[in-house]
Amino acid sequence: MKTHKIKFLPHGKEIDFEESESVLHAAMEAGVHVNASCGGEGFCGKCRIIIEKGDIEDGISEHLSKEDLDAGYRLACRSRIKSDLTVRIPVESEIDASILNRAPPRRTARIQQMNLEDLKSKGLFIPPVEKRHLELPEPTSADNLADTSRLIGFLRLKHDEHRLVVRLPVIRKIPGTLREAGFKITVTLDRPVFDGGKTHIVNIEPGDTTGRNFAIAVDIGTTTVYGQLIDLITGSVLAEHGDFNGQISYGEDIISRIIYAEKPGGLDTLHEVVIRTINRIIDHVIETSQVDRQQVSTITFAGNTTMTQILLQIDPRFIRRHPYVPASTLYPSIRAVDLGIDLVDHATALVYPSISSFIGGDIVAGVMGSGIHLSDQLSLFIDIGTNAEIVIGNRDWLTCAACSAGPAFEGGGVQCGMRADIGAIEDFSVDPHTLEPMILTVGNVRPRGICGSGLINIVARLLEAGIIDNRGKFNRDLKSYRLREKDGVYEYLLDRQEQTQIGRDIVITENDIGNLVRAKGAIYSGCQTLLEAVGLKIADLDRIVLAGGFGSHIDIEMAMTIGLLPEIDPDKITYIGNGSLLGARMCALTNRIRKDVVNVMKKMTNFELSETPSFMAHYVAALFLPHTDLDLFPKVKGRLERRPGPKPVVIKELMS
Amino acid sequence: MKTHKIKFLPHGKEIDFEESESVLHAAMEAGVHVNASCGGEGFCGKCRIIIEKGDIEDGISEHLSKEDLDAGYRLACRSRIKSDLTVRIPVESEIDASILNRAPPRRTARIQQMNLEDLKSKGLFIPPVEKRHLELPEPTSADNLADTSRLIGFLRLKHDEHRLVVRLPVIRKIPGTLREAGFKITVTLDRPVFDGGKTHIVNIEPGDTTGRNFAIAVDIGTTTVYGQLIDLITGSVLAEHGDFNGQISYGEDIISRIIYAEKPGGLDTLHEVVIRTINRIIDHVIETSQVDRQQVSTITFAGNTTMTQILLQIDPRFIRRHPYVPASTLYPSIRAVDLGIDLVDHATALVYPSISSFIGGDIVAGVMGSGIHLSDQLSLFIDIGTNAEIVIGNRDWLTCAACSAGPAFEGGGVQCGMRADIGAIEDFSVDPHTLEPMILTVGNVRPRGICGSGLINIVARLLEAGIIDNRGKFNRDLKSYRLREKDGVYEYLLDRQEQTQIGRDIVITENDIGNLVRAKGAIYSGCQTLLEAVGLKIADLDRIVLAGGFGSHIDIEMAMTIGLLPEIDPDKITYIGNGSLLGARMCALTNRIRKDVVNVMKKMTNFELSETPSFMAHYVAALFLPHTDLDLFPKVKGRLERRPGPKPVVIKELMS
Repeated sequence: MKTHKIKFLPHGKEIDFEESESVLHAAMEAGVHVNASCGGEGFCGKCRIIIEKGDIEDGISEHLSKEDLDAGYRLACRSRIKSDLTVRIPVESEIDASILNRAPPRRTARIQQMNLEDLKSKGLFIPPVEKRHLELPEPTSADNLADTSRLIGFLRLKHDEHRLVVRLPVIRKIPGTLREAGFKITVTLDRPVFDGGKTHIVNIEPGDTTGRNFAIAVDIGTTTVYGQLIDLITGSVLAEHGDFNGQISYGEDIISRIIYAEKPGGLDTLHEVVIRTINRIIDHVIETSQVDRQQVSTITFAGNTTMTQILLQIDPRFIRRHPYVPASTLYPSIRAVDLGIDLVDHATALVYPSISSFIGGDIVAGVMGSGIHLSDQLSLFIDIGTNAEIVIGNRDWLTCAACSAGPAFEGGGVQCGMRADIGAIEDFSVDPHTLEPMILTVGNVRPRGICGSGLINIVARLLEAGIIDNRGKFNRDLKSYRLREKDGVYEYLLDRQEQTQIGRDIVITENDIGNLVRAKGAIYSGCQTLLEAVGLKIADLDRIVLAGGFGSHIDIEMAMTIGLLPEIDPDKITYIGNGSLLGARMCALTNRIRKDVVNVMKKMTNFELSETPSFMAHYVAALFLPHTDLDLFPKVKGRLERRPGPKPVVIKELMS
Repeated sequence: MKTHKIKFLPHGKEIDFEESESVLHAAMEAGVHVNASCGGEGFCGKCRIIIEKGDIEDGISEHLSKEDLDAGYRLACRSRIKSDLTVRIPVESEIDASILNRAPPRRTARIQQMNLEDLKSKGLFIPPVEKRHLELPEPTSADNLADTSRLIGFLRLKHDEHRLVVRLPVIRKIPGTLREAGFKITVTLDRPVFDGGKTHIVNIEPGDTTGRNFAIAVDIGTTTVYGQLIDLITGSVLAEHGDFNGQISYGEDIISRIIYAEKPGGLDTLHEVVIRTINRIIDHVIETSQVDRQQVSTITFAGNTTMTQILLQIDPRFIRRHPYVPASTLYPSIRAVDLGIDLVDHATALVYPSISSFIGGDIVAGVMGSGIHLSDQLSLFIDIGTNAEIVIGNRDWLTCAACSAGPAFEGGGVQCGMRADIGAIEDFSVDPHTLEPMILTVGNVRPRGICGSGLINIVARLLEAGIIDNRGKFNRDLKSYRLREKDGVYEYLLDRQEQTQIGRDIVITENDIGNLVRAKGAIYSGCQTLLEAVGLKIADLDRIVLAGGFGSHIDIEMAMTIGLLPEIDPDKITYIGNGSLLGARMCALTNRIRKDVVNVMKKMTNFELSETPSFMAHYVAALFLPHTDLDLFPKVKGRLERRPGPKPVVIKELMS
């Protein structure tokens, strides 16, 4: 993607930004405040800028008079970058530069991708299901070995294959296929997990089909199911597709699914429904990639413990009952068709193991995908959602825990909360003098609500601007129509009902902030508790890996500002995207994963935070922004000390 | 069974014989000739004897006048033994005692049974599927292992079980069963063949059911299917049942079955039909033994290669096509239900491996059952039928071959041949002076034909009496209405049409004898060829094991007389009955069999006799009675030299 250098005046901040993107986005990314409350749609007409140098496209609006246009005014949200630019923010829409300069630029985590070449160079690109071509001598009177013996003998001789077992359906096919194909055939080999195990011959085909071997990797989320079609010869992803998990009709969250599964026939229904979703995704990726369905020999699955148990038709009722015992951690490999998956009879289904009822195969897959189990570095792996799962450790040891963070990160328990759909406020800054906001929404349309990452950004910016204090309370001294009390609760007006898509004011309330504080507090204190359990502390962390949809939107600086993430060098935070899908894909590419995952399971210590005495103290101390102990967040502390507005409340007083 | 001492006068031969049996049978067994042509039914009235001492029951007939009765005459066939007896054979029905004394008494092979105690004492009574009871601690907050992990952990701790794999259907049952049963449960373990393999947990039941574990062993014969229900705790057979293989409607022999299988849908039909037969047998043995079908955890199968392939739905067409290649030798263990067997889902089906298209799992099972693979002795294992299978070897090596003997042993290609059913002539002797026969039939009814063992006995007795020569030709010098030429073929009249059940004369022709000679020649020369291939000769044989239905009827002395069996000490010939069923039963009792059988397969060299150059020379030399080289049969040679009638034809002349 072509980028251009954008310079913002008067403060002189510069950023490299992609061509055709809007100047408003570039400003947000650079940490430059421009008043804007319509989310980027061009509706409010507030984001006036002057293009001093360079070319833009559009930028014109009915909000600008002929005089404005002549004077070089444009709307930032409508101005598409075409070249290097120098952009001046007019006085009326610019806040005190000295203050804004202290705010960190928008920053998402660096994306960590799977390194296929690395896998290949290490000789680990050995899929769990492989093919081998053989040209066998035809039997004669002097050499009338049984067909299967001939096949096995030559696999040993020509391909150094040992410990082979032939499945009965293959034995049935062997005599006919050999003769029909002139004894030139391809066999499909299903690898054992451990070296001493047996390799199963699961298929035989006429001719040489070794160039066509595919897998499907599936992440079964409670809400969404994603599938990828993978070429097992090149390792590349040929197609990807996501769809809502059909189980949604039977309950939005895990608990309601389990309750439904407990009804007569409920488990079977939920199983069938998710299999239908998976089959639809398979149809889609097969159609998109024009791959022969017969050549898909593996399907790998990762999902949370409940999704996994339902996939495998295992009653999940005890997952939600004290003491929260899953049916199993490891699952045997099975035939995909036995689950109702629409693939060939011999296609193998591999399912990621779960650690506990709350740390499922999706997290294990993410850990395997991230590689933290192979590293000397002390890493924190974190998948943030209603239940945030945390894994901390390195190549020698691993600990994990699930934190019940509540639904705030998914927009739940927040008055104007919503999922990260079109119209969700995802970016925000605020003028500390006027309290006027700069709002960007998903899709650059007028706002409909606040998504989780937006909530973090809003709270962080309000904190940095001194509009809320470290308890998450609004500064009652500030006077603005944007700060008000309603039904006894203080709130900040993000957007007026005339501008929103929902016909109501969009606000953030102290209650919303409180929910976020509790959510982030649970996660941060979970990390502390795990680290403490092994005699370490936050400062010892070398690396943070974010996983899950939420991780891609999160502004890592803002997340550190509110105390959600430990404050470390942002370069050491990476994002692996859908870790569950990544792990599922890796499992299809390298059989080594299945061996490693057993070792990871052995090394992993699971903590039930609610049963861990130190957790509650850590939790209470984390119920501040960013934390009771500001020394854990030195950079944030520095910024807060220089901000306008109230000094941090002295915590000792509060806690006495 | 109570026995009595029976002494026959005038020659003084004695025999211990069972109470209630007929004196005629005792005479036959003792080698005492009594004229009798009605098979033992009392119809001909020829078998007149005088009871000189002791008590009999019956013995009276309308053939005997009052004078006869007063003189102590009775019919031997109607006289039931009640005490020790002295029986005089009247002159008119007795042959020259000096000659008869040289004929060996009737002798069947000693029965060799499976030694269960030996198995137990050697610690080998470990069925392939076993049960273990466990009382698990209930999970708590501090101990909330996954259910499956808890189960596996305690199996390791309490029962020293390792390398465990849990099948998915069991994982599905575990959570519910554990809780319903208060964590007191029994698991069923499916053992691996080799020590390094995995033990599969295939079932979980509430409570302690370790006392109830059963298996079914099945021999799938081309004609008949036999099943046994076995108690895997005691090792005993609780019920046994046989039934005709339902495939008979689709062809009597293997070739016609294969031809049927090649038709569209033919294989499926034959498969379904034999599965129906097997299921009927299972129903029967389960009903008889009052065992809970749910507790049958294993079914073991042995059958010839064609029967095995049809059982497993593997196209057998290449078995009958040059170069006669079977689909496989080893077969994986599978779920019985996958074959359509009416047992519980987790019941394991184990199928004996085949050596080649002609040496099938029935023979391998017989070898395993006989234990010749464990012995230092050089043993000949032989199953005589249309195809006679021969295995020769010891603990260090084994060779095998199939001889195409033709159907003579099953009554085929013999003018009055029949199966060993009611009315089949099975025992015979002949008065060398009068040429009058002594005939006993199966069921002691008037004759319907000649069965295979009867044919051997007839030919042997005719040879010993000098009525045929060593080429199997009748002595043209003998004058009797019993010897005659019909349509250019010489024949011996066994029974006149008035006496038979078929309304025709029952005869044995020179063509019949020729067929028998070729059949026995093929078998004997097969043995020689195998022995020669490993640098040994007939005289090196330590032991002969007979298997198959035919082996139980065969008179081993007569079999040696005609040169079917090598001449060795009759004490060294044993009969194992249905070797296939025996092997199937042993496989259910000791998992060691599955390991041993793989080693046996590796040690076994299969010979295609038709491809072995030396076979034809041996075969031609064996087309005499008993053989060209009489020194191979010193005992027979001695008797023949002292017999009446023609001296042996000098073979050299014949062969020039």
